[in-house]
Amino acid sequence: MKKINTSPLSGTLELLPRQQLVFDDYKRKIEEVYKHHGFLRIETPTIDRAEVLFAKAGGETEKQIYRIVKTEETADGANEALRFDHTVPLARYTVEHENELDFPFKVSQVARNYRGERAQKGRYREFYQCDIDIIGRDSLAEDYDAEVILTLSEAYNALGLAEKIVRISNRKILAGLLEALNLQEKGTEILRIIDRSEKVTPEKTRGCLEDLAIEPAKIEKILDFCEINGPRKELMQRLQALGVSGEKFETGVAELDRLLKILESFDSCFRGDMRIVRGLDYYTGTVFETFLPAHREIGSIGGGGRYENLVGLYSDKTMPGVGGSIGLSRLFYVLGELGKVEQTTAQQKPLDLAIVPVSEAEVAFALKVAQDYRQKGQIVDVVLTEKKLANKLKYAAKLARQAIVLGEAEVKTGEFQIKEFLD
Amino acid sequence: MKKINTSPLSGTLELLPRQQLVFDDYKRKIEEVYKHHGFLRIETPTIDRAEVLFAKAGGETEKQIYRIVKTEETADGANEALRFDHTVPLARYTVEHENELDFPFKVSQVARNYRGERAQKGRYREFYQCDIDIIGRDSLAEDYDAEVILTLSEAYNALGLAEKIVRISNRKILAGLLEALNLQEKGTEILRIIDRSEKVTPEKTRGCLEDLAIEPAKIEKILDFCEINGPRKELMQRLQALGVSGEKFETGVAELDRLLKILESFDSCFRGDMRIVRGLDYYTGTVFETFLPAHREIGSIGGGGRYENLVGLYSDKTMPGVGGSIGLSRLFYVLGELGKVEQTTAQQKPLDLAIVPVSEAEVAFALKVAQDYRQKGQIVDVVLTEKKLANKLKYAAKLARQAIVLGEAEVKTGEFQIKEFLD
Repeated sequence: MKKINTSPLSGTLELLPRQQLVFDDYKRKIEEVYKHHGFLRIETPTIDRAEVLFAKAGGETEKQIYRIVKTEETADGANEALRFDHTVPLARYTVEHENELDFPFKVSQVARNYRGERAQKGRYREFYQCDIDIIGRDSLAEDYDAEVILTLSEAYNALGLAEKIVRISNRKILAGLLEALNLQEKGTEILRIIDRSEKVTPEKTRGCLEDLAIEPAKIEKILDFCEINGPRKELMQRLQALGVSGEKFETGVAELDRLLKILESFDSCFRGDMRIVRGLDYYTGTVFETFLPAHREIGSIGGGGRYENLVGLYSDKTMPGVGGSIGLSRLFYVLGELGKVEQTTAQQKPLDLAIVPVSEAEVAFALKVAQDYRQKGQIVDVVLTEKKLANKLKYAAKLARQAIVLGEAEVKTGEFQIKEFLD
Repeated sequence: MKKINTSPLSGTLELLPRQQLVFDDYKRKIEEVYKHHGFLRIETPTIDRAEVLFAKAGGETEKQIYRIVKTEETADGANEALRFDHTVPLARYTVEHENELDFPFKVSQVARNYRGERAQKGRYREFYQCDIDIIGRDSLAEDYDAEVILTLSEAYNALGLAEKIVRISNRKILAGLLEALNLQEKGTEILRIIDRSEKVTPEKTRGCLEDLAIEPAKIEKILDFCEINGPRKELMQRLQALGVSGEKFETGVAELDRLLKILESFDSCFRGDMRIVRGLDYYTGTVFETFLPAHREIGSIGGGGRYENLVGLYSDKTMPGVGGSIGLSRLFYVLGELGKVEQTTAQQKPLDLAIVPVSEAEVAFALKVAQDYRQKGQIVDVVLTEKKLANKLKYAAKLARQAIVLGEAEVKTGEFQIKEFLD
């Protein structure tokens, strides 16, 4: 009889030890790629001042932030809250430690964040995000966009997701188009419509644009624009064919041209795509999202972009940056749905070797033998339960690839055999 | 001008990237030792049901638990809270997943916990704890106590703290003594006095015992008992010289005798010490604490012990266990105070190699060269800032051990030199 409900909270990801091994392996692979690309790890506190966290948040995000309180305090009085992303604490961190950091500051953050969303499949209230950012002081070379995108691409490759597609645009191109069409003041609404356009029918998108009282010719232009995607050469031709001019448009196109040129020399997974806008986020230049073409139904598995100023809310300085994120909890859920996690856990035993002393008399010797094998780098358990030998071996066979049984004779001679468990 | 206070919250440990490298290295070393001893990692959610977390907590701990609420909710209505240790969520986890776990369940947890204490030097509100536990179903062999203590000892060795001392007792010995003295009903108060006896004068301890109206002869016995410590043989003689009999006392002495016999065959850092009781915690057998003899002033740097039943609050089953913990945030603070962190950060550069393209024309080639060296396992940054070459090299020299400068000639010939930075 359970006295208290012991299930983990909805919206949290609690794994069994063998699943955790797979999760940790994914995490480690991502961290290794980030590290080898020269991103320095930081860990900001999970708890932060409410004024810091709420400074950027607005609307939906604000409602999702968890405040922390001690018994008898109320939420309104609470001046501390849980981090909901890595970007806001990073901005605070960069302002606070500016004089102790080297710029460009290449930084990675891999940790759990918290949002009070309604829990759904693959949507968590507590979730791992694996972020990288490069932050400049006053300015930051455009080519760092390539470095961020290449790093994330290699992280996906390390997870066995080389078949991914990275779809890339530049916000300046859309902004330039809207300037040319004299639709700037409807920019936010149009951006939102484009962002959703992939999830609805073309008629619906057209209807939404019509609702904004945009002239039919301009609507056609926007719809044509959304359909522009492909590798660099094709993309550039189609963008030119739009016949749009203006400095912003041309800057955006030139930036995207150079970015794709660099990226395409590495991998064929990169393509331009004007439908990518990254919702209402704070991006101002390059934007990108990653998809698994065989599993379009699961949507984007990560993305990022360039922002003009990270620290505007906390400082009068200007620190432009470019960053991106892999939502690891969500990705793990997705890979689980695809059967990849189960496959790995079934193949893998957590231990290399189990040392099984026959009786209490052999325990000290068993611990010594275990130490020797650990020093050789093996993962070794010593099975000390008082159960019968057959039961000890059953336990060993379940967890380990090999076992060493130690009885009186083995202690005496110091010689023993290694038993291989065949599955 | 800062617009918002950007300092991290008091009671949190926010590190600069180079300090983080050292911290992560410590964490990794502990995790490696745990892993090689066959402890399987789990990560419970940081947020859990209030009823689960408050079930065990009482008094001081309850006041320190952070509840989480969304805006406009109050703390009293909140039914979710932040984990304050690893033991309570582990109990919930073990009950919840019992049928999917292998017992004895050897488990490790390395993550941050939260307590609303008043922040002091080396005392955090958000802190890393690195726990190991071995949990049995119905019973658990006594010798697992040795496995836990040896594992923690090796973890300290891996951190360069081989000069530690592990002081060990068994709660049954004190319980047996109090039985023999017919002082069981004052057990809690006496335990608390012994626990504090090292931090006060002997007269103060005597006074506290007198306040409990204990006969002088019995007080002498308790004070003599507290002074008993040393290696196994000496300890056993002195315990026998006390002249106490009774089953509980003798069981405790026999368990400690066997434990020390095993441990002493590994290392001379282990000793019996009757003053070790581990406060008011839930331990029922072996108890231990680790100290740095050269820094007694900083107190215990970790400890643990055996408990009769982990899951009593959540299940009718009995699951005895033995576990221990390293308080990593506190230990990191202490090592910092001892100058060990600074020493490491000063010696260590975060990057192996910086690739420096002279101009934009060499960027794509530079990214390729970087990729080659990363595939060889090196940590490589590409310096893409638009600054002058001299400034790029200054940045490279600060962060990396070596650099490769790539200009027109290098791209053309594909040949380049590696520049070594000498410090």
